[in-house]
Amino acid sequence: MDYKIFKRAVNYYETDKMQVVHHSNYIRFLEECRMDFLKQIGFDYDLLEEAGIMIPVLSVSCNYRTPARFGEVITIVPKVERFHGVKFDMSYKIYNEDMTVLHNDATSSHCFVDFDFKPVRIDKLMPELCEMFKEVVKIDLI
Amino acid sequence: MDYKIFKRAVNYYETDKMQVVHHSNYIRFLEECRMDFLKQIGFDYDLLEEAGIMIPVLSVSCNYRTPARFGEVITIVPKVERFHGVKFDMSYKIYNEDMTVLHNDATSSHCFVDFDFKPVRIDKLMPELCEMFKEVVKIDLI
Amino acid sequence: MDYKIFKRAVNYYETDKMQVVHHSNYIRFLEECRMDFLKQIGFDYDLLEEAGIMIPVLSVSCNYRTPARFGEVITIVPKVERFHGVKFDMSYKIYNEDMTVLHNDATSSHCFVDFDFKPVRIDKLMPELCEMFKEVVKIDLI
Amino acid sequence: MDYKIFKRAVNYYETDKMQVVHHSNYIRFLEECRMDFLKQIGFDYDLLEEAGIMIPVLSVSCNYRTPARFGEVITIVPKVERFHGVKFDMSYKIYNEDMTVLHNDATSSHCFVDFDFKPVRIDKLMPELCEMFKEVVKIDLI
Repeated sequence: MDYKIFKRAVNYYETDKMQVVHHSNYIRFLEECRMDFLKQIGFDYDLLEEAGIMIPVLSVSCNYRTPARFGEVITIVPKVERFHGVKFDMSYKIYNEDMTVLHNDATSSHCFVDFDFKPVRIDKLMPELCEMFKEVVKIDLI
Repeated sequence: MDYKIFKRAVNYYETDKMQVVHHSNYIRFLEECRMDFLKQIGFDYDLLEEAGIMIPVLSVSCNYRTPARFGEVITIVPKVERFHGVKFDMSYKIYNEDMTVLHNDATSSHCFVDFDFKPVRIDKLMPELCEMFKEVVKIDLI
Repeated sequence: MDYKIFKRAVNYYETDKMQVVHHSNYIRFLEECRMDFLKQIGFDYDLLEEAGIMIPVLSVSCNYRTPARFGEVITIVPKVERFHGVKFDMSYKIYNEDMTVLHNDATSSHCFVDFDFKPVRIDKLMPELCEMFKEVVKIDLI
Repeated sequence: MDYKIFKRAVNYYETDKMQVVHHSNYIRFLEECRMDFLKQIGFDYDLLEEAGIMIPVLSVSCNYRTPARFGEVITIVPKVERFHGVKFDMSYKIYNEDMTVLHNDATSSHCFVDFDFKPVRIDKLMPELCEMFKEVVKIDLI
């Protein structure tokens, strides 16, 4: 798979008075990376929403190792750990720009639901997209 | 009118690396104060949304005078400057807890729309609520 | 211990286009609750910072059970799971106002550091405060 | 001047339950654009902070014309309206990706201060950088 790694600059408003990125913002960075990843494998979130599907978060965890700072570019490497018809699990490593410093490692779990938050069997509804998804399970993207 | 002034503590995550509240957060504090104010005069946002009405922001302005800091409680005094059938303008003063220091003064303008962002004549739709609204125009709440 | 349970309203700006609270915001709510809790047991964050001490987050985890919505008041019940000289672990339950619905359960781990992020032996530096802290370990606050 | 226009995707967490970008986030987008602009003209914020200088916001205003939505890329065109030794004023236009839709127009005013928020005569301290700044006043960057 031809995957373009997710990178983005740290914004000033994402820092706190410890003068580093506030810990809650990494959870947002994971979402940015995940949306980008899903788009790259064909799961464009806009298209999903047109089909009446949302992908809420079931759980997140994050281990903070080295604080990221304003002025820095971070790199996030996602990995699909598991995928079946209604749920999927991801893991992430958040590095500095040249990937010599690990800022965080993290996980998230998700399901597919309709606009009433009822589970949707995405494998039945979008079987072809799901084939693509299955192919990236356990794959190191870089 | 029996109005309870809006007060709230500054949160740690609302600070930035200048070690004061990030300027964008005051725009959010204004929203908190406005929602609280609207509720107090009978315009409960939940009820409005049930009636298919939203109150988007047409414009905001904010003058930053003294930075607010974590650990502090801020007080916001709102005022309705103008109200007619589709729009209203508000002004705000954001103080420290005992109102001896002015942190900001600000304004916002709003309209009433349906879920497709089309203007709604709130004065026709909810005439009684609007009477209450008209009564607070230009009134100093404290 | 005479503990006042943490409650706060959900703000409009904390929702996302799923029309519920964005998952990252619960991480912020935990911080609000934790700061409030630490203050109630005598660890006022302002005083800590005056003493050159910060309490960064080492890890967080959150399980999302039922989405919280705008217009709602949430209740957070914290618990100290473990405390020793440099670190402590907390768990949290986030409920609706009357505590009949569990929105989330969560955990966080923390350490005490100086402004250069070097670990501080808080038990040596502030032994009396630490006694108070030890007393709340494993205590159900409500 | 060889200026690269600021573009960025709208993030999911930046939407609210109106299903569009929450109005407070545009204030953050302005900061992103401004930091990028300052860097491009040589005022790298990191270097300023090393020199003990911060650039707080004195005022902002924003007119909301068309809501931006998740999945969209926005373009921001900044302009320096005025610059003298301690202060500067900027204006901004926030467009959609191909600049056919104007989402917002906005302004911000700033000053240069030291870490105690005391004004700094940047023109005395960094005369060469200021020459560059003066050259972009009133210049349309695209």
